[in-house]
Amino acid sequence: MYRTHNNGALRQSDVGSTVTLSGWVQKSRDKGFMLWIDLRDRYGITQLILDEERTDADLFKKARTLGREFVIQIEGEVIERTSKNPNIPTGEIEVLVTKLTVLNESKTPPFTIEDQTDGGEELRMQYRYLDIRRNPVKENLIFRHKVTQAVRNYLSHEDFIEVETPYLIKSTPEGARDFVVPSRMNEGQFYALPQSPQTFKQLLMVGGLERYFQIVKCFRDEDLRADRQPEFTQIDCEMSFVTQEDILTIFEGLTTHLLKEINGVNIAEFPRITYADAMRKYGNDKPDIRFGMEFGELNAVTQHKEFNVFNQAELVVGIAVPGGNKFTRKEIDKLIDWLRRPQIGALGMVYCRCNEDGTYKSSVDKFYDQEDLAKWADVTGAKAGDLICVLSGAQDTVRTQLSALRMELATRLGLRKPYEFAPLWVVDFPLLEWDEESQRYHAMHHPFTAPKQEDIHLLDSDPGKVRANAYDLVLNGNEIGGGSIRIYDKATQSLMFDHLGFTKEEAKAQFGFLMNAFEYGAPPHGGIAFGLDRLVAILGGQETIRDFIAFPKNNAGRDVMIDAPAPLDNAQLKELHLKLALKS
Amino acid sequence: MYRTHNNGALRQSDVGSTVTLSGWVQKSRDKGFMLWIDLRDRYGITQLILDEERTDADLFKKARTLGREFVIQIEGEVIERTSKNPNIPTGEIEVLVTKLTVLNESKTPPFTIEDQTDGGEELRMQYRYLDIRRNPVKENLIFRHKVTQAVRNYLSHEDFIEVETPYLIKSTPEGARDFVVPSRMNEGQFYALPQSPQTFKQLLMVGGLERYFQIVKCFRDEDLRADRQPEFTQIDCEMSFVTQEDILTIFEGLTTHLLKEINGVNIAEFPRITYADAMRKYGNDKPDIRFGMEFGELNAVTQHKEFNVFNQAELVVGIAVPGGNKFTRKEIDKLIDWLRRPQIGALGMVYCRCNEDGTYKSSVDKFYDQEDLAKWADVTGAKAGDLICVLSGAQDTVRTQLSALRMELATRLGLRKPYEFAPLWVVDFPLLEWDEESQRYHAMHHPFTAPKQEDIHLLDSDPGKVRANAYDLVLNGNEIGGGSIRIYDKATQSLMFDHLGFTKEEAKAQFGFLMNAFEYGAPPHGGIAFGLDRLVAILGGQETIRDFIAFPKNNAGRDVMIDAPAPLDNAQLKELHLKLALKS
Repeated sequence: MYRTHNNGALRQSDVGSTVTLSGWVQKSRDKGFMLWIDLRDRYGITQLILDEERTDADLFKKARTLGREFVIQIEGEVIERTSKNPNIPTGEIEVLVTKLTVLNESKTPPFTIEDQTDGGEELRMQYRYLDIRRNPVKENLIFRHKVTQAVRNYLSHEDFIEVETPYLIKSTPEGARDFVVPSRMNEGQFYALPQSPQTFKQLLMVGGLERYFQIVKCFRDEDLRADRQPEFTQIDCEMSFVTQEDILTIFEGLTTHLLKEINGVNIAEFPRITYADAMRKYGNDKPDIRFGMEFGELNAVTQHKEFNVFNQAELVVGIAVPGGNKFTRKEIDKLIDWLRRPQIGALGMVYCRCNEDGTYKSSVDKFYDQEDLAKWADVTGAKAGDLICVLSGAQDTVRTQLSALRMELATRLGLRKPYEFAPLWVVDFPLLEWDEESQRYHAMHHPFTAPKQEDIHLLDSDPGKVRANAYDLVLNGNEIGGGSIRIYDKATQSLMFDHLGFTKEEAKAQFGFLMNAFEYGAPPHGGIAFGLDRLVAILGGQETIRDFIAFPKNNAGRDVMIDAPAPLDNAQLKELHLKLALKS
Repeated sequence: MYRTHNNGALRQSDVGSTVTLSGWVQKSRDKGFMLWIDLRDRYGITQLILDEERTDADLFKKARTLGREFVIQIEGEVIERTSKNPNIPTGEIEVLVTKLTVLNESKTPPFTIEDQTDGGEELRMQYRYLDIRRNPVKENLIFRHKVTQAVRNYLSHEDFIEVETPYLIKSTPEGARDFVVPSRMNEGQFYALPQSPQTFKQLLMVGGLERYFQIVKCFRDEDLRADRQPEFTQIDCEMSFVTQEDILTIFEGLTTHLLKEINGVNIAEFPRITYADAMRKYGNDKPDIRFGMEFGELNAVTQHKEFNVFNQAELVVGIAVPGGNKFTRKEIDKLIDWLRRPQIGALGMVYCRCNEDGTYKSSVDKFYDQEDLAKWADVTGAKAGDLICVLSGAQDTVRTQLSALRMELATRLGLRKPYEFAPLWVVDFPLLEWDEESQRYHAMHHPFTAPKQEDIHLLDSDPGKVRANAYDLVLNGNEIGGGSIRIYDKATQSLMFDHLGFTKEEAKAQFGFLMNAFEYGAPPHGGIAFGLDRLVAILGGQETIRDFIAFPKNNAGRDVMIDAPAPLDNAQLKELHLKLALKS
C-alpha cells in the first residue's frame, strides 16, 4: 500500500495520527536545521517537515538530497502547524517525517511544475506529460471529464442511447478531405476515417432507435488553422419523429442543464434569431449577444448627400461603441489601421463622436450636418459619450468587416466576460451557398439537410433563397452546435443531389446505401452535433481548445511528443500494396 | 408534433383520450369489415383498429393499402379491447383511428422485422438498418448503452477521469499489425491507429492524473478469425501509487457492481488462481469455473503397468464427466472422433466407466485392474455414474486438448448456463513466452509489464520462468480483462527491451518518448483493459460479439452495407504522395 491518504485530505482533526503519503516533491525549503517539503499529488499538497531535533540524522540527510519532481513515499505523524496557511485545504497541518522511500528520481524538468510557469508552447507540447502535472492543465482535463459525464447522464436520462458507429468507413469526396486507411486484406482499397457519423446516425434512425447520441472522435484532413485539430470530438445526436421545435427544446434543456450543473449559472432566456436577422444585426451567423452594439443600417439617412463613398455603397452600416467618445484621435486612427489590415480589408472608416453636450462631431462633417448625425445616432442607438463607427461597401463584405470591428471593440472594452453565458439559436439557415471556386452551389450544412417545405419551389428559380430546417447553437459568439431536420425520402434526397451537381452514378456510389435505406420506411428525423472541444473550453471560460485536449497536435498536424506521423518501413508499405510517390 | 405518446405507453387508464401516435406498420389483419394494425416504435406496439361501422370510408380504404414497415402517423381514440392481450403492456387497449397520414412508404423488406426471422447473416449485415429494427438487436444495443453507462458512473464515482487519447499516433512494429493513415501534410509519413492507448495512459500517470479510464476504440489489422473485429472497444484503465492488490480490489468492485446493476446477480466470492494452477487444473488460462471437471493428473497411478502409451507420456491427465456413464459406446466413439479432428489433434482417448455398483470398466482393462481404476476415480473425483476421460502426451498439448474436451462436454451437458456468472482472477502470468517462429521470447502481456521483483534474477538464466505482475479477469471461461503493474523506471524498461531483442536504437525510435518520460519522476502504476464487446455479450448471456455491435464488419474486414473499403480516386492518392503497388 502506497498511501493511507492523498495529499489533499489531511485536516486539523487528523493531528496525532500516523500516515503514509506518496507523491511528487513540489519544492523544498532548507533552513539548515529544518527542512520543509511540499508533497504534491493529484489531490493537493501536504507540507512535510524534518528537523535536526526530531528527525533521525540519516533520514534528514537523505531528505535534503531530494530534487524537484522526485517521487517519494513517506511515513510520519500529523502535527499542527505553527504558522498556518489558509490558502490550501491542508494548511492547518504538516507531517513530521519518520520514514522516507524514494520511489523514483527525476531529472530537472525543462520547466517548473507551477501554475504560472509553463516554458512556452513548444516545450509544453514536447513534454506534455509534465505539462499535465501543472494544475491548470490537469484541472482542464478533469473539467472536460465532468462536462462529458454531465452530457451523458442528461441524454441517457432523456432516453438517448449511446451507440458506437464504425471508424473504418468509406471515403466520400464531398466536403472536407478524409483521412484514409489502406486495407491490407482488400488490395488497392481504402477505408476512410469519419468526418462525422452523419450517415450512420441516420441509418440508426431508419433502424428505429429514435434517440441516439455518441461522444465520438471525428477526423478532417484540412490545412490547419490556429486552434483546429485533425482529430476532434463531437457530441453527436439524432432523433426520430421530431420537428425542429422538438430538437431545439431538448437541446436547450441540455445546454441549460450544463450551464447550471457545471457553471452554476441559471439561463433565464434562450433567444432565437433567424440567419437573415443575425447577418443584418450582427454581420455574423454566430453573434455574441452578451453586449449590444447592434448594427444600424444607415443607407436611408446617408445616401441623400454629396458623399459618394456612401452613395455608391450597397450598404452603409454602423455601430455605437459605448463610451467610445473617450477614444483619442490617435486611438481612432489605430483602429482604422486595424480595419485596413488585409485580414479585415476595409478601405476606411467614417466615425462620429457623440459629445456629452448632445452635439456630434464626425469625420465627414463636410457632408453631414447635426440633424443628419442625430439620425445616425438614432438608428445605431448611440448615446452621449458613444462613438459611431460606420463602414460602407458591398453588403456581405461590409457586414463581415463591421462584425470583426464589433468583436474587437467588445474584447477591448471588456464586454466579453468569460463567465457570463448567453446562448442563442440561429435558425433558418440557407440550404445552399454559392462556391466561387467550383462555380456551383454547395450544401451549407450538408447534403442531407431538409429544405423548408414552403421554399422548395425556389430550388430551380432562386436556389440561394431556399431556407433549410437548419439551426446552430451559439454560445458567447462561438458556434458550439449545429444541426438540421434531415431529408427522409429518396425523391427529395435525389433532388438535392441533383442540385449539388452529383450525377446519379456519383450519388449512388457514395450514398447508395443511405438512399436504399430511405426506401424501407425511414422516419422523419433530425439532429445536432456539438463540438465538444470548444464547448468545454467555453464552459471553462477559455477559448483555446488545445488546453482542453490531453495530447493535441500542432498546426502541422504533428504530435511533437511522440514524433508522429513518421515514415513506415518498406515491408509494411509492401504489405499494404503501396509505394511512395514523393515529389522530392 | 408527431405524437402525444409512444407505442408502449397507453394503458387502461388512458381509455377515452384522444392520442396521436407514429411508428411503423408491424402487420395488419384485414377481416374485410374490420382492420387491425400493429403500430410499432422503439418502445412497443399499439394495436390500431378501423372498421366499416365507425371509420370514415376513405380512411378505411386508405388504411387497407398500408404495407409492412410503412411509416405512419395516426390520430384516434383510446378504447378498451374486447379481447385483451396480457403479453404486452398495451394489451388492454386499442386505438380507434380517426386520422391517418403516411409519413413514408416502404418497399417489402428483404426479411420480416420479427424476433425470430432474420433472413440469415448475409442479408442481416447488408440491411443492418432493418436488422436493428428487430427487437433482439435493438435490445442488445440498448443493453450495451446501459453497461457502458454503469461502467462510466462507477469509475467516475471512484475518482477516475475519462481522458481522450489520440487516434492518430505512431506505428510500432511490436505486437499485431497497425492500421496506418498516410499524412498529406507530412509527405511520405504515416500515422497509425492505436492498438490500445497503452503508452498514452502510462504518460497520463507520469502526468499525475492517478486514476484514468477511457472507453475507446482500438484497431488491429489481423487476419480475422471468427468473431474478431478490426475495430473493437476497450474499457481502458490505469492507476498510480497502487499495488496489484489495489487494482484487483477496484476492478472486483466494478465487476461486482455490473453484475448486480445489470444482471441483478450478487457475487458471493471472487476467487483467484495462479496461471500455473489454472493450467494444471483446467489446461487453460481462462477457465470456466461454473462447473467442476477439474483435471486429475494420473502419472503416479498409471505409469506402473505395461501400458506404454501412458508410460512414455509426459502427462497423463483425466477428468470425471458427471453422469457420463450413460454415454453409449457409439457416443463415446463419436467423442473420440471429435478429439481426433485436426482442430484438437488428440491421438485417442482412454476412458473408464464408473458403474453404479462401484465397479469400473475401462477401455484399458488389459492393463489396469479395479484397484488401479479406483485410484483414477479418486484423483479425478469421479463418482458412481461418471465417465473418466483420460488423455496423454506432451504436457502443454495434452492440457489444451483436455481443456477443449472439458468445455465441449460442459456445453453438451448444459453446464455453461448463460445467466450464471462466475468471475475469476488469473494471476502470476509468465513475463515472457517463447515464439517458435522468430526463435525468441516475446512479452506475454506487453513490453511494459513489470516482472515480479523476486524473479528478476532469472531473466538471464531461465527467462521463461520469470513471473509478471500480470493478471486476467475471466468470466465464464472468457477473458474479459487483462492488465499488469507496469515498469516505471528507465533501467528496468531498458532491461526488458534488451530481453525482447530490441536494439537500443529500435527501443529509442519506438518508445523513446516513454523512456524519456520515465526520467522525470514516473510514479508506480498499473492498469487493466476490458474488452467491452465481449463483456457486454457475456453479461447479455451470449457469446457472439457481433450481435452487440451496431455496424460490425465481416471476416474479410468489410462493411457490406456501405461497401467499404473501396478504391480511392487517383487525385486523392496523389495528394497523399502514394501509388498503388498491386500484385495483380
